[in-house]
Order: sequence, then structure tokens, then C-alpha cells
Amino acid sequence: MGNTFRIIPDEAFGSKAIVRIRDIAAVVHNYKLFKKKADLTNSICGAVLKADVHGLQMKDVAPALYKEGARYFFIEEICEGIALRKILPYDDARIYAMAGLLHGEEAYFKESNIIPCLNSLEQLNRWNSFCGLNGRGSAIIHLDTHMNRLGLLDDEVNILSNEFSSLTSNLMIEFFMSHFYDIKGTDHSNCYRQLDILNRYLEKLPSIPVTFACTDSVILLDNKAFNLDMIRPGIGLVGGAPNMENPVAPDAKHTIEIYAKMSQIKNVKKGETIGYGGSYTAKRDIKLALVHIGYKDGYLRALSELDNHPQGVYMYVDQYRLPIIGKISLGATIVDVTDVPSDILEKYKYAEVVGSNVDIKFLADKAGCYEILAALGRSNIKIADYTLQEFKTLFSDNG
Amino acid sequence: MGNTFRIIPDEAFGSKAIVRIRDIAAVVHNYKLFKKKADLTNSICGAVLKADVHGLQMKDVAPALYKEGARYFFIEEICEGIALRKILPYDDARIYAMAGLLHGEEAYFKESNIIPCLNSLEQLNRWNSFCGLNGRGSAIIHLDTHMNRLGLLDDEVNILSNEFSSLTSNLMIEFFMSHFYDIKGTDHSNCYRQLDILNRYLEKLPSIPVTFACTDSVILLDNKAFNLDMIRPGIGLVGGAPNMENPVAPDAKHTIEIYAKMSQIKNVKKGETIGYGGSYTAKRDIKLALVHIGYKDGYLRALSELDNHPQGVYMYVDQYRLPIIGKISLGATIVDVTDVPSDILEKYKYAEVVGSNVDIKFLADKAGCYEILAALGRSNIKIADYTLQEFKTLFSDNG
Repeated sequence: MGNTFRIIPDEAFGSKAIVRIRDIAAVVHNYKLFKKKADLTNSICGAVLKADVHGLQMKDVAPALYKEGARYFFIEEICEGIALRKILPYDDARIYAMAGLLHGEEAYFKESNIIPCLNSLEQLNRWNSFCGLNGRGSAIIHLDTHMNRLGLLDDEVNILSNEFSSLTSNLMIEFFMSHFYDIKGTDHSNCYRQLDILNRYLEKLPSIPVTFACTDSVILLDNKAFNLDMIRPGIGLVGGAPNMENPVAPDAKHTIEIYAKMSQIKNVKKGETIGYGGSYTAKRDIKLALVHIGYKDGYLRALSELDNHPQGVYMYVDQYRLPIIGKISLGATIVDVTDVPSDILEKYKYAEVVGSNVDIKFLADKAGCYEILAALGRSNIKIADYTLQEFKTLFSDNG
Repeated sequence: MGNTFRIIPDEAFGSKAIVRIRDIAAVVHNYKLFKKKADLTNSICGAVLKADVHGLQMKDVAPALYKEGARYFFIEEICEGIALRKILPYDDARIYAMAGLLHGEEAYFKESNIIPCLNSLEQLNRWNSFCGLNGRGSAIIHLDTHMNRLGLLDDEVNILSNEFSSLTSNLMIEFFMSHFYDIKGTDHSNCYRQLDILNRYLEKLPSIPVTFACTDSVILLDNKAFNLDMIRPGIGLVGGAPNMENPVAPDAKHTIEIYAKMSQIKNVKKGETIGYGGSYTAKRDIKLALVHIGYKDGYLRALSELDNHPQGVYMYVDQYRLPIIGKISLGATIVDVTDVPSDILEKYKYAEVVGSNVDIKFLADKAGCYEILAALGRSNIKIADYTLQEFKTLFSDNG
């Protein structure tokens, strides 16, 4: 038996093929779960809102989190920071850009009061020089604890250590930060090794608060050693987790639901190939339907069900599971409806793509990461988009 | 030696990390290549504009093709049709919705004068009934030549044959259409087999023009048997093709270029793992850089370079190839710049992601299909978007 299947009236679809419902209150609920964990170590609870909050949308999420007391926000690039600054009700929130200070962006950072997470000595020098001419500025310095990606690595840390005062003469360094590479938490010793490297770095550097990326790391949730002075939940705010079996907390909430129209049920004989490339073969006489969401809508083609790459991804209608079959195409996905009673197919003209029966964590596991959420969450002419509150106000939740 | 590397001035980026340039004249050029092929068999040359013309954008492409004489347009869903109808300068163009007539959409089709490609008897009945009450309507009937996806299959074709007059009593059926499943053209006999099935269907049906999907099928380009009464180029309009080795024509043009800012060059020792998951190991002492485009920007994670899944995808700077290494992350991709002279890295602060050196066909081959183009072409706060004409007007093309 599945969970409740949400009733979506025709008017909610209108001329669109997909309905998306975003539960902003659930994001706030999840933020409070993290806040509770941060409080245990007197750590600040930040909030990472990059990728338009993975589709939950900054315009709704940011004011709600601000109202809940959040004041430390992280985004990826300066353009997101500029947008967020306009959305937040007051100017007392700090906004940090994790992509760093890219070439030519200094004036944008200054103008919108965004704080760069400096990722290299080159960026540090450039920001320090700019702030020398244009007034003192803030910064985070990103230390690379051998993820070998963003941040200052061994040699650069040594230089920073030796010349800290002159390198930061026009800057207020608010935090050091670093990032885990084993975000799935497959081997906790990886995280401890990075923490060791961080501590070796810190011995050489002035005493400044430190934050570590955390959300996707289950280890943080069980071990206060990783909280440090600030935690930075991101994917966990929207109900994500490193994997299906390890949610952020037992009472973490789903935040997004997606439904797509279903059409043209037809019968196909055993042995026939189905869809593009003929890469799926019917294992029995089957009845199939088309669900009108495809890779252009962010339903990644990597979720396809092929003879030589079975994945087991599914959708739902009422209490019935609809296995995906064949290649996901640009605008549609084929599902197997053989075992669904006719009256159910007659009654419902849409399928649940993500919702109470199809966990986004399940799809992220299958797709390899939360690319699926970023993709499904994007703006799209084909989607009728509602917050849960809007949906409930507009369409009485009966049925 | 690579091709010309386009000079992108800082002002073109502004506060954005990515510049996208869309060459609308090149789309028109490609349309004319198809038109020439269609003329050989007195076939109509349609134009498939679905997925916002794979990122080339209907608002620019549709008026340009209309001006060139195109009058038969295909889109996927009704919502795209409503948008296209508003964009086209006059009402004499025909717009066909390939997704068919989904539940509850009848009035939208009528209101915007969009013609459904009816995919099942259920849709045919529904449209015929609606048009009985609201005035005669047009339609295409989609025949499923055993792709086992959209369209009427064997049994439904028999019913259509027996009851054609009553089933279409309030309709003007403009075309029959069908679709190839072997779009890569791996085995031409697959297309011939579908053509045979189509011909068997047609023997039972009234004489009405017929169109077959074609663009991605090289076979059509060499063999007039598949032109029938209309061809429907889509991905070929934007420079795509079934694979790298088989462009639509030798003089088919690229239509899209993408450049992304590059930052923080650093040295990493042989044997170190790089990026998320530690899934790529440095094979030598290397110098790496970050290019600020990631999967949230449509640079699909499937293109990642992993130890256990080498793909060989690359970007370019000037005349130098930049191999991708490690997992593509949400907002950034790591590239190997070891072999690029320092003065080049000093001079250019961005990389070519798609352009004259990195063919979209190459990326589509690697990613498995044109999901990559639909993804890169979407609207995105992080992208400064220009038509080539706008770009040339705004930024003198010097350097």
C-alpha cells in the first residue's frame, strides 16, 4: 500500500502538463531540525540556498527562513547573491558566495554587499587590493582539505600563514571554511582525515571561526566534532539526504511534489521493443501509458529503464506503482500500467512523479545525486507551479 | 590546432558566470538545407520547435523561419503552442502539438488554433466530439509503426479504417504521421521495416498526406523514400545530427556557443583524488582549474570523467584542449590545464564549453542524446544570453 495520493483538479493543470507543489513550511521545519543540532554545540545554523534552493525557489524560501531567524545565507555565484539581497526584507543578513570571487566581479560584490568565499591566493589578493581602494571588506577563506577542488591547498595555506596580516590588510576575515568530498558518507574515516588536515592548517592560522560543509554528511548529525562554529545545511533543507536509508532526521519532511498528465493507454505484445532505440523489450503482454514529463522537464534520461541497464524507477497512480520502461524521451516517459485496474486509469489522468509515494531521495539515489532535483525544480513553460499554501487556497483539497 | 576561439569581453559576462550566444541566422541556414532536400520530392518542409528550439528560443527562431517561408510548425505540448501562436506575426501558420490532446485540453487547442496530433482513438473521439459541439476542427492522426509509443497501433488502425467517416465526422484530417525509433540510424533496415508497416496501414486508410519524423535519421537525407509529403526537421535545425560522423549536410552550421568563467588554478600531486567522491585520481602531477558551469546549468553530470568511467569530454581555451576531470558538480567542473602556457591562462579567464572547438554533436554523442542541448539551452539566472547579432552589436568582435 502506498501513501496518500494527492488529488489534483483539472483546473490546477490548466494548459500545462505538469503540476509542481512546493512546501515552504516543510523547508522551515527542516531548517529547525538543523538549528536544533547546531544549538547543541552553540554553532550558527547557516542555510545554503544555491540553485534557487534546488527548485524550492529563493523568493519564497529566503523570507520564510529569515522570519525563522536565519541570518547566514550561502549561495553559489554573485548573480544569485544579487537576487537574494533584493528578496531579503532587511539588510542585516550575511550572504556568502561559495563560487568565490571570479574575474571582474569585485564591484558587484561591493555593490550588493555579498561576501566572497575566497578560493585562492589570487582571489584573496584581488579582493584585498580592491577593498584597499574602495573601503574595507569582509571575506571567508576557503581551505582545501584535499578535496582538491575549491580553496587554498597546502602551499597556499603556508603562504597565508606567513603573510596573514599583509594579505588581509583591508579585510575582515569572518570565517575559514572547508568542504567534505565523501558526501555520501560511505567511509567516515574520509571525513576524519579531512578534519585532521583542517586542524593542521588551523594551527598555523589566526583564531577565526570555522565552518565545514555538512548537510549531506550523516557523520555530522551524529558527531558534534564536525559542527565547529557554523553548520551549512543545503540539500537537507529540501528533504534530501546522502542516501535513502539515512535521512537527516526521522521527522525530516518532503518539500516538493510533481504530477504529470498521463495519456493514451495501449496494449503491446510480449517481445516487442518499446520507444526510442528499441532498447527495452516487453517481458510479457503489457498495457502501457505515456506520462508527459521528459528530460527537457528535468526528468533525467539517466533514469531510463533499458534491457541492459535495469534501474527500477517508478511513478504512482493512486495506490499503484507504475514502473518506467524504455528510454525517457524529450517530453514523455513510458510507464507500465498492466496491473492498474481500468477504473483507476479512468478516474485519474495524471501520475505522481515525486511525492508521498515517490521519494526524491529514491530518485537521487538512482540518478546518482541531486542533479534530479535541480533539474525538476527549474522554471519551465510546461509546469503549473504552486506553493502548497497557494494550492490549498486555490483548490480545496477534496476528492 | 583548434578553430577560432571567440573573444568574450568582461562586459559581456557582467555579473554572470556564463555567456550563451545563439546564432539565429545559422538556424535559418540549416532550415534552408532541409528545404532543399524537401523540394526534391515536392514535400513540405516543416519545422519542429519543441523544447524552446532546444534552447535557441522560439521568440527569435520562429519569426526568422516564418520570414523564410516556413508555415508548418510542430511543438510538443499545447502550452508551447499557445506561446508560439503569440510569437508568430500572422495567423496563417499551422501549429501542430505532437504530445497530442491530453485530458482537458480541448478548449485551449480551439482558442489558440493549435492542431493536435491525435495519438489514440480515445483522443480522436474526444476531439471529434468537442468539434461537433464547438465547430469543425483539424487534426493529424499519429500512426504507431511499432515504435510502441505515440500513436494508433494495429488494432486501433483497423478500427479507424472501418469507421473512418464516423470517427472523423467533425474533423478535417490534414496528415497522417509516424516516427522512427532508430533515430541514430544504426541499422537502416529498422526504418525500412517501419515504412513497410506504414504502407500496410495506409492501404486501409483514405488518401491523406503523410509525414515521417526525419531529422535525426540520416537515411532520409540520402533516400527520398522517407520524405513523403512533409519532412519535419528538429534537432538538425540547430546543428544536431544522429552522431558526430553524420552531419545533416557538410555545410550545416553550429548554432550555439557557451563560455564559462574559469578560476583558481592550482597544482595537485600525482595519486591525489580530485573532487566529490574521490572518484578521479591524478595520473601525474597536474595543474587544474575550475570552470564555473555545472549540472544545475545543464552541463550534465553524465559527462563526468571518473577512473572507472573515462569519457574524454573536454573544453577549450584558445587553441588548447582542457580535459574534464572528476565529477561535474552543481555549479562547477574541474579541468586539467597542465599543458596550457601560463600566459594563455593569464590572458583568458574563461573557457569554451560549446563552440567552434567543442561541437554540440560531440557532447550529444558522449551524453547519449540531445538532452545536453535542451539542458544547456534553458533559462538560467547565471547566463548572460545573446543572439549572435546582439553580441556583435554590443561588443565589437575584436581581440
